[in-house]
Amino acid sequence: MAQQDAFSRLIEALKVLPNVGPKTAQRMAYQLLQNNRDGALFLQQALADALSAVQHCRWCNTLCEGEVCALCSDTHRRSDVLMIVHHPVDVASMEAAHCHDGLYFVLMGMVNPTQGMDLKNIAIAPLVERLKHSHINEIIIATNFTAEGDATAYVLHQLLKDLPYKITRLARGMPLGGELEYVDAGTLAQAVYERRHLNQDN
Amino acid sequence: MAQQDAFSRLIEALKVLPNVGPKTAQRMAYQLLQNNRDGALFLQQALADALSAVQHCRWCNTLCEGEVCALCSDTHRRSDVLMIVHHPVDVASMEAAHCHDGLYFVLMGMVNPTQGMDLKNIAIAPLVERLKHSHINEIIIATNFTAEGDATAYVLHQLLKDLPYKITRLARGMPLGGELEYVDAGTLAQAVYERRHLNQDN
Repeated sequence: MAQQDAFSRLIEALKVLPNVGPKTAQRMAYQLLQNNRDGALFLQQALADALSAVQHCRWCNTLCEGEVCALCSDTHRRSDVLMIVHHPVDVASMEAAHCHDGLYFVLMGMVNPTQGMDLKNIAIAPLVERLKHSHINEIIIATNFTAEGDATAYVLHQLLKDLPYKITRLARGMPLGGELEYVDAGTLAQAVYERRHLNQDN
Repeated sequence: MAQQDAFSRLIEALKVLPNVGPKTAQRMAYQLLQNNRDGALFLQQALADALSAVQHCRWCNTLCEGEVCALCSDTHRRSDVLMIVHHPVDVASMEAAHCHDGLYFVLMGMVNPTQGMDLKNIAIAPLVERLKHSHINEIIIATNFTAEGDATAYVLHQLLKDLPYKITRLARGMPLGGELEYVDAGTLAQAVYERRHLNQDN
């Protein structure tokens, strides 16, 4: 009877994984316990290790092992430009684009505009703390161009606009390789509204 | 024997249609001649009518019936802003985005940078002629953000930069709804390089 309960609990627990429903969770549970108990033990230990080792970076709030993450520890990066992103995965995307050599702050969430612009989903207090101990000139708000990302950018701008920082946001417009025929109307309109001067002096 | 020749010629002719290869062309030819001779006649007449009626607009060079297209004839549109695009379909995309109420010029092609920036693929002479008879302040270069589109924009800018026009190009950046995690690295880098100031006065 106790065995039965533990098995059911494992199925329930596997459903915390993304895209795993009851059927898949049941198949996984049987697979692990019947055929791959070593794998199950490995997964159990990896989860325990990660839970004890991985925490938030004291500076940028991303997930890392140790007190400060590798990017914040890198003294070669510019310390006067801070880019604010939603999630740790956004830091990875940005690093892959090789276009930002400053530091980051990770909000660990986004503001939901349908729930009254609630700030509890983003790490505002750690951000304020971070800004206290820094020599930052420019803050780049690199939130998504979705309703949640726009709401987050708005909230951040309201919070920061009276502080002595240059505040910028990522450009909107045509994606690289974009063709007028295939780009959605909203993006096209944005690209027209924010068109660049090619001859500034005229 | 003559019949056989005409049939083969029809198959060859159907292959001028986009994405129609020999097999499809043969199936189309049999379908038309065996089962849908009315359809074939209708297609033949439509082609004849279009070939005689559809020509280039005298002002914007797009395809239209009559001497001047509907957009160029519309006196409610601003005549001081001219947007240059590659193809007539780009005018349709732009009109669907409701973000430009000026006029257009259609190049009917793009510069191929791998073939020595040859200008013979774009309607330069009609463009020069168009500019002579106009009161234009701003020229928006709305070419694609591909190698061909960039080459076309470069050539146009070289041609126009010493003339008394404000020259702009569509903004590059994150598409509407774009999330950092899913946007390609080149677009992400462009969005950072061309980031907008949210507080211009700081």
